Amino acid sequence: MPETSSPAPLRVALLGCGVVGTEVARGILANPIDLEARVGTRVELTGIAVRSLDTERVTDDGFVIPHDLLTTDAEALVDGADVVVEVMGGIEPARTLIVRALGAGAAVVTANKALLAERGPELFEAADAAGVDLLYEAAVAGAIPIVRPIRESLAGDHVRRVLGIVNGTTNYVLDKMATEGLDLDQAVKEAQALGYAEADPTADVDGFDAAAKAAILASLAFHTRVALKDVAREGIRGVSAADVAWARRTGHVIKLLAVAEVIGPVDDGEISVRVHPALVPDSHPLAAVRGAFNAVFVEADGAGPLMFYGQGAGGRPTASAVLGDVVSVARRRLTGGKGLRESKDQAFPVLPSQAAVTRYQVRLAVADRPGVLAQVAGVLADHGVSIDTVRQAPSDEKAETAHLIITTHAAREASLAATVDAVAGLEAVREIISVLRVEGS
Amino acid sequence: MPETSSPAPLRVALLGCGVVGTEVARGILANPIDLEARVGTRVELTGIAVRSLDTERVTDDGFVIPHDLLTTDAEALVDGADVVVEVMGGIEPARTLIVRALGAGAAVVTANKALLAERGPELFEAADAAGVDLLYEAAVAGAIPIVRPIRESLAGDHVRRVLGIVNGTTNYVLDKMATEGLDLDQAVKEAQALGYAEADPTADVDGFDAAAKAAILASLAFHTRVALKDVAREGIRGVSAADVAWARRTGHVIKLLAVAEVIGPVDDGEISVRVHPALVPDSHPLAAVRGAFNAVFVEADGAGPLMFYGQGAGGRPTASAVLGDVVSVARRRLTGGKGLRESKDQAFPVLPSQAAVTRYQVRLAVADRPGVLAQVAGVLADHGVSIDTVRQAPSDEKAETAHLIITTHAAREASLAATVDAVAGLEAVREIISVLRVEGS
Repeated sequence: MPETSSPAPLRVALLGCGVVGTEVARGILANPIDLEARVGTRVELTGIAVRSLDTERVTDDGFVIPHDLLTTDAEALVDGADVVVEVMGGIEPARTLIVRALGAGAAVVTANKALLAERGPELFEAADAAGVDLLYEAAVAGAIPIVRPIRESLAGDHVRRVLGIVNGTTNYVLDKMATEGLDLDQAVKEAQALGYAEADPTADVDGFDAAAKAAILASLAFHTRVALKDVAREGIRGVSAADVAWARRTGHVIKLLAVAEVIGPVDDGEISVRVHPALVPDSHPLAAVRGAFNAVFVEADGAGPLMFYGQGAGGRPTASAVLGDVVSVARRRLTGGKGLRESKDQAFPVLPSQAAVTRYQVRLAVADRPGVLAQVAGVLADHGVSIDTVRQAPSDEKAETAHLIITTHAAREASLAATVDAVAGLEAVREIISVLRVEGS
Repeated sequence: MPETSSPAPLRVALLGCGVVGTEVARGILANPIDLEARVGTRVELTGIAVRSLDTERVTDDGFVIPHDLLTTDAEALVDGADVVVEVMGGIEPARTLIVRALGAGAAVVTANKALLAERGPELFEAADAAGVDLLYEAAVAGAIPIVRPIRESLAGDHVRRVLGIVNGTTNYVLDKMATEGLDLDQAVKEAQALGYAEADPTADVDGFDAAAKAAILASLAFHTRVALKDVAREGIRGVSAADVAWARRTGHVIKLLAVAEVIGPVDDGEISVRVHPALVPDSHPLAAVRGAFNAVFVEADGAGPLMFYGQGAGGRPTASAVLGDVVSVARRRLTGGKGLRESKDQAFPVLPSQAAVTRYQVRLAVADRPGVLAQVAGVLADHGVSIDTVRQAPSDEKAETAHLIITTHAAREASLAATVDAVAGLEAVREIISVLRVEGS
């Protein structure tokens, strides 16, 4: 498009040149004409800060990053930039460099979920003080546009609940368990062999990665600040092949969910933010999210149910989200105007996990004789936990044992815990095999 | 949030007070504190332009619009506004009022898909000339954030293909046919009884509504201008109960799809934009979109596959999208800076429908005797149409007729049409029962 005057090129500094960084660099270097058309001026990659100049930087499919763009002097690179893109990960030096960039009036795009979950408020304040943008679409659910839709498209609505499958590794593992009957260790090994899981899978399997995303999603959805430490977290280590098989028999799949919801009035309630495995009914859109895909299901007062689905990780998908943010901040630098301030006008108290309210499915082994179901039901009733359905599973005749699968109506986690303790104390109850939450029904 | 100085309230004029308009008015009037927090200043609804002052305006759940906000003088209302929200529909007077608003420097939010599809370029130019925003999230797929994600989140990526279920009425009808075995007329009557379909269902059933959305989606996805007249359009009137049942037997569902795709190189190709019923494999995320829900599936080079799902119509969902846009333009008026220009830097030729390339499933009745399949396959081969699978269906013994269900590899529509003509001319072929496109595999 012809411009009456040619604006100065936009100088972009890239911090980090790993799986995502190489793809961001390729996106800028390989599509100069398209980017210029989107932004309105030329986008110039001024340099890439790396720890070592010795490594060759190349994308998975062979695009070689020019060596002369690499530098170990991140501070000098930041100081000359209009836009700083941080894809190095970790807390330091990423935090210091971002604060430095914002202080100098540069816009910042980051994919760093851990940093945002731990130090978000400090960074957002620095961006607000400088009047510049700090965007982070890539930090939650990779390529899926979810930050911008919640932050902008739903800004005139009230979000009630967010249910997210935001960790592809665990979704892959649970999907393998469901479809191929593998146990957890086997499925994790397969995920490792395919590069979906790290050698040490703790961050994924124990829910740390999902918890950081839950904190960011809750902060966005409820215009408040939720820190990582506020997120109740339970990973998938306790999920057995039998749990997955039983879920299937009762019309569910097990997913590791990031849950953020308002309990009580939407303008004066409390919020619950948590990560845990949950039974999701087969009919729910999240149940169809297979393999390493991510999806975020949002319920809002006006919009009703919404779902956003796509790839949650990987160099190219994550770089797509980063580049979208680069175009956004670049356009704003050109059209003028201050950055979009992160809204944090609400101060919802975050409920302790014991106060969260959900439905539960409890599976237990009981003596196979008349009257046991009535006994168990009586204990639930005494604790005020209401039963939705009970299913008696085929008994093991030799051991004179039957299985009861009890699905409750919504109950506080604390009440349920006390109830389960009481049930476990019944003479006729041999074992509490599993207690799983049910979401999305 | 405390502000150092209190900005002037933002004056919003609403044009139209029907199903969507009443909900937009409620959204502004009932949540003043939330809106102020999101925007940064008070949002004031200055008036609502209506045709008649005699009707009482009330939302479905009883929120009454104050009568003193109503006016029949739309022009005066527009002239005093910072933001004009147009939800009256139709081409005139909506077009004239929007142009007037933009000319006076007001930002405009519209849900008017027909107007955008027919007169979009003129409106975008007026917005660009005035340096103000013209936003239209509600015009495609109601509550689903799809315009903003394509326009902004994917701005650094290349979209290859968009497949949209963007008409809830026809999706409801096709879903009823599939799940309850109804024929088209019965399902349409049921949709009418539930208020999903108009007394005259032409706009939905014949694909006009979907075609307008296809034009908007294609323009957005490919940074080009696609007019309604460029969209090849085929509705669902030709879809029989037998087609739906056969689709199911071959592992598909039939959906009315809005398709926009690049054929050839992404920076120098052609695009095909069309609306037609298509077979979608059961395993595709779009296949699970049930009832009156909408969904848009996007394939981009970097991001890979994405899907956006939610309610595509209705007063509250559509108002949610409108209000999100109101907050966006209001924020920009406060933070300063020009509106975001609609990008139209690409000039993809739009292919005629005969040149579109898809897979097909052809169902035909043939004489039940040896050698017929070979004959039919020979005709396809002669025309360069490659066969993916052939299925012989249980024959009708009395009539000595068998069914062949042939699924082809990708072929040009023109080649396929010639091929089908030639097949129909074979002595052994009794009838070409149906020819349906296959998408999403």
